Amino acid sequence: MLPTILDLTSLKEAYAAGLSPLDLVEEIIARCKASDDPAIFITMTSEDSLRETVHQLLAKSPVPNGLPLWGIPFAVKDNIDVAGLPTTAGCPAFAYHPQEDAAVVSRLRAAGAIVIGKTNLDQFATGLNGTRSPHGAPRSVFDRNYVSGGSSSGSAVAVAAGLASFSLGTDTAGSGRVPAAFNNLVGIKPTPGLVPNVGVVPACRSVDVVTVFAANVGDGIAVRKIIEGFDARDPFSRQALPAHLPSDRPRIGVLDSAEREFYGNRDVEALYDAAIDRARSLGAVIVPFDYAPFRQAAELLYSGPWVAERLAAVKGFLATNAQDFDPTVRAIIEAAKNYDAVAAFEGRYKLEALRQKTKAEWERVDFLMLPTSPTTYTIEEMRADPIARNSHFGRYTNFANLLDCAAIAIPAGFDPDGHLPAGVMLVGPAFTDDALAPFADAMHRAADSGMGKDRTAKLPDASRVTSTGNDVVPIVVVGAHLTDMPLNHELTGKGGYRLKTGRTDGSYRLFALSGTIPPKPGLVRDPGFAGDGIAVEVWALPPAAFAHFVQNIPAPLGIGKILLDDGSRVSGFLCEAHAITGAKDITEFGGWRNFIRAAGAGA
Amino acid sequence: MLPTILDLTSLKEAYAAGLSPLDLVEEIIARCKASDDPAIFITMTSEDSLRETVHQLLAKSPVPNGLPLWGIPFAVKDNIDVAGLPTTAGCPAFAYHPQEDAAVVSRLRAAGAIVIGKTNLDQFATGLNGTRSPHGAPRSVFDRNYVSGGSSSGSAVAVAAGLASFSLGTDTAGSGRVPAAFNNLVGIKPTPGLVPNVGVVPACRSVDVVTVFAANVGDGIAVRKIIEGFDARDPFSRQALPAHLPSDRPRIGVLDSAEREFYGNRDVEALYDAAIDRARSLGAVIVPFDYAPFRQAAELLYSGPWVAERLAAVKGFLATNAQDFDPTVRAIIEAAKNYDAVAAFEGRYKLEALRQKTKAEWERVDFLMLPTSPTTYTIEEMRADPIARNSHFGRYTNFANLLDCAAIAIPAGFDPDGHLPAGVMLVGPAFTDDALAPFADAMHRAADSGMGKDRTAKLPDASRVTSTGNDVVPIVVVGAHLTDMPLNHELTGKGGYRLKTGRTDGSYRLFALSGTIPPKPGLVRDPGFAGDGIAVEVWALPPAAFAHFVQNIPAPLGIGKILLDDGSRVSGFLCEAHAITGAKDITEFGGWRNFIRAAGAGA
Repeated sequence: MLPTILDLTSLKEAYAAGLSPLDLVEEIIARCKASDDPAIFITMTSEDSLRETVHQLLAKSPVPNGLPLWGIPFAVKDNIDVAGLPTTAGCPAFAYHPQEDAAVVSRLRAAGAIVIGKTNLDQFATGLNGTRSPHGAPRSVFDRNYVSGGSSSGSAVAVAAGLASFSLGTDTAGSGRVPAAFNNLVGIKPTPGLVPNVGVVPACRSVDVVTVFAANVGDGIAVRKIIEGFDARDPFSRQALPAHLPSDRPRIGVLDSAEREFYGNRDVEALYDAAIDRARSLGAVIVPFDYAPFRQAAELLYSGPWVAERLAAVKGFLATNAQDFDPTVRAIIEAAKNYDAVAAFEGRYKLEALRQKTKAEWERVDFLMLPTSPTTYTIEEMRADPIARNSHFGRYTNFANLLDCAAIAIPAGFDPDGHLPAGVMLVGPAFTDDALAPFADAMHRAADSGMGKDRTAKLPDASRVTSTGNDVVPIVVVGAHLTDMPLNHELTGKGGYRLKTGRTDGSYRLFALSGTIPPKPGLVRDPGFAGDGIAVEVWALPPAAFAHFVQNIPAPLGIGKILLDDGSRVSGFLCEAHAITGAKDITEFGGWRNFIRAAGAGA
Repeated sequence: MLPTILDLTSLKEAYAAGLSPLDLVEEIIARCKASDDPAIFITMTSEDSLRETVHQLLAKSPVPNGLPLWGIPFAVKDNIDVAGLPTTAGCPAFAYHPQEDAAVVSRLRAAGAIVIGKTNLDQFATGLNGTRSPHGAPRSVFDRNYVSGGSSSGSAVAVAAGLASFSLGTDTAGSGRVPAAFNNLVGIKPTPGLVPNVGVVPACRSVDVVTVFAANVGDGIAVRKIIEGFDARDPFSRQALPAHLPSDRPRIGVLDSAEREFYGNRDVEALYDAAIDRARSLGAVIVPFDYAPFRQAAELLYSGPWVAERLAAVKGFLATNAQDFDPTVRAIIEAAKNYDAVAAFEGRYKLEALRQKTKAEWERVDFLMLPTSPTTYTIEEMRADPIARNSHFGRYTNFANLLDCAAIAIPAGFDPDGHLPAGVMLVGPAFTDDALAPFADAMHRAADSGMGKDRTAKLPDASRVTSTGNDVVPIVVVGAHLTDMPLNHELTGKGGYRLKTGRTDGSYRLFALSGTIPPKPGLVRDPGFAGDGIAVEVWALPPAAFAHFVQNIPAPLGIGKILLDDGSRVSGFLCEAHAITGAKDITEFGGWRNFIRAAGAGA
């Protein structure tokens, strides 16, 4: 019996327990038929094609879970090419039949995932609400009267309704995050350029990003790692340079009172405040920051020359098919004709000046936590004022791609009636995509609001994101660099963080070196000795900081490989042999901290 | 007696020997009066003001050479603000009187340098030839019939004629490099964003760069280090991330036969070929590369929407003062009115696609060596065809700022008659500004073509640029990582290069470790031992590579501090004490290489 929400862990466990992907696709077909929202998909993969795809998968990879996404069903926003299905971008007259998968789809299929269909969207991905489509408006899974959010409307609802394990969206202004907030999902918005856009219909090419909707952070990150990676065919594709964040006591920027705007929605404001409380209880240092330069950058996206990118993307089609556009979308795109090239460059100057102002804020915080959307509206309300109310949804999302940020949108619980959910976003500098994930995951778990439409679902332990998996260097410390010891700041001041405490193998002896300031021990391996091991801590440092750290270690100490009691060998402090001559053997204390404590007590 | 060319070394030596800056300014005044080129300066600092400035300097810093640029005279292109002098940008009607120095001028004055005047330029820095000014055309210092190059025309001629020690230019298309080539000078063109543009009249704001003309590379780099550094007031200012280049056997990209274009100038082509030969003799690996994507990017600068930046810079003034423009400059700028915002973004898409194509070329080479200008023209020839012939000068320069490169233009000798000089440029990826310098300096010295108009001047030894001064980590290697030994590739493969050979202090012993593959020695300090030291090599590694290198060192080896025979302590290989038990003491061989040789001979 499959759960409502088809998160990766649950589905992989079901496969491991004997479920066949053939059973899975029958279940998906049945769920789609039973769905009460006819606007989620624009095109479904045919039932026969789904079954044939599974047979091909089983022929290629017969062992359950033999590929990273073996038999995992996913949905694709209909501005992303899937060979064999039309790409419409939400405009039937624009439809074409791609011969090749988009780069991201190709990578997912190679990993064993199965496309179940192409999802509805605000036409040409121009919107944040989900009502700007001739295929109807998908609805919030929690109330049919409310918008689903957009532009990746159908992709979010498909996952939240249990019709797919994950889905692909795109995000220019916030389209990969706002629908996550309205449907109790996680939205992974990569740093621009990390995931290639080959085979994606452009909205604003310079700031378009393919995103992932998932039931939890671990699922979303796992999918992102499969779709990311340089592709020279995309002019904006970049080599990633993973950036680090402190994993302990991060400084989180939150809206100060001057920049709070929820358009009267006290429920969302209360949920934002509750998220701040949760972040604090998870160890964060809460820092009210100045959102003004971010907001001003956000405003450029629709009130500045960037709309010309939308026109650039469809100008040929617009010239011949203006009547085929959604009227709101057409009005937005045609406004771009008012901008000349001077205005385009002047817009860039404004953006760069604002970027400099945001740098001062980034020095005060490690990442930001913002409301994903400050409010929501019914479909009726949205249709009554489609431009202004749409812009409300983008108040805190629009800047992220212009300012080269990574973001993860996470559920933040439900209003007091348990009626509608809200979300918060963690937003970090470029290439903090992995570094944001552990805190985002911890926040989602602390919110305890389930996944998608299943508000009581427990997040599986196996999806927990415990470490960044980033390119950090582990280093064993044994003396003055231990937590709270005099030289610990040399680690924390360089962006280091503690990974764990542990013990060396029993073959090490510890000596109190004479004449060192501050006092330091020397760790020496004696393969013939069988003791209890020495207490150590393992810290992580960014590579350049590690290099600098090693550079500054004075003789007789050095960095070698330490054998730990779990059999691993990790870089750590060693001592030259000559310095041990005459030094006191303090192995019996079991570690430097005990020795210092005893020495203090004795003094 | 001062030399013709007032390079920093000569002038500092003169100051150290007793010359007063008061004498220096009288000499400058006399030289300016005697100059046969009336078009170099637009505004001179008054004689009284020069003398007063020196008195203030002597009051503040009485000791000779007590500041980095103590009493060093420099000229400033007249699109860069100097408080007290008008800024005209080569257009008298545009003139304004700045209250503050440009950021770069302020930094230079704080370092003790003295502004002698504001120099002529192609109006609004729009040109590469020097004839587009109502103040007349400065002339090549080698032939009055020939153009000086531009747009930084007066700045180059001032240094080449011995009227200033260095000067500031600006470079959008090549204005800080082409005039260097025509006047036998060095032109330092920093990576965009490294030097702030606060107080500089924009040409194309997104790609404008302040440059330095100097007599030699060492002088130019010294000045650049004073003017560089983040300034948040400039929207395009960036924090530098120094990039490294191999100092040994660099792979240098040169034009392949398909992309060679000298517009019939065989002298310049021959000088380019001679420069390639010199590079090879200096140890470079010459790699013909595909210039096509760089050329296509270069063509965008004037044939694409970037001219709209020039219009953005002066549109208010153009609306009221169109008749005050140089007709050629006006025609270029007014053409920008043909571009709309869609064209501006489409230009960016083209550029980004070309950038991806150049990445494949950058993987094959460490840096490029190109002709600075493929030809030159007389003033009469230039005036006969001012647009096309100007564009010839930019064939190899125009791409550098669009593609985020650092460049150093250096002299490449004279034509067979000794009549006119030519130059070559080294061009590297962003922030290779320092890394390019040692090879550029070596090339200039090898060209043996003097400095500026003094073709026989010897480049002073003190100006030699011997190492990058970059943030590299030195590491002492003693065994399998020595040059030509089995693990040396772990250093060279990570961008490492050898700094020097040397010996340890006499207190070290060397042991042949048993059971290591490949065979490795262990270096152990024994403070009571007085030997002859052990032969070592000191290598340099970029920090992240160093971290990775240390990470991969297996026990019982590690990295500590090695005491060398010169008393310095450098990171290097140590060995855990337990591994020495039973190992053969090979100290008597004086080093691992001798031991291996002897062992090989014995086998």
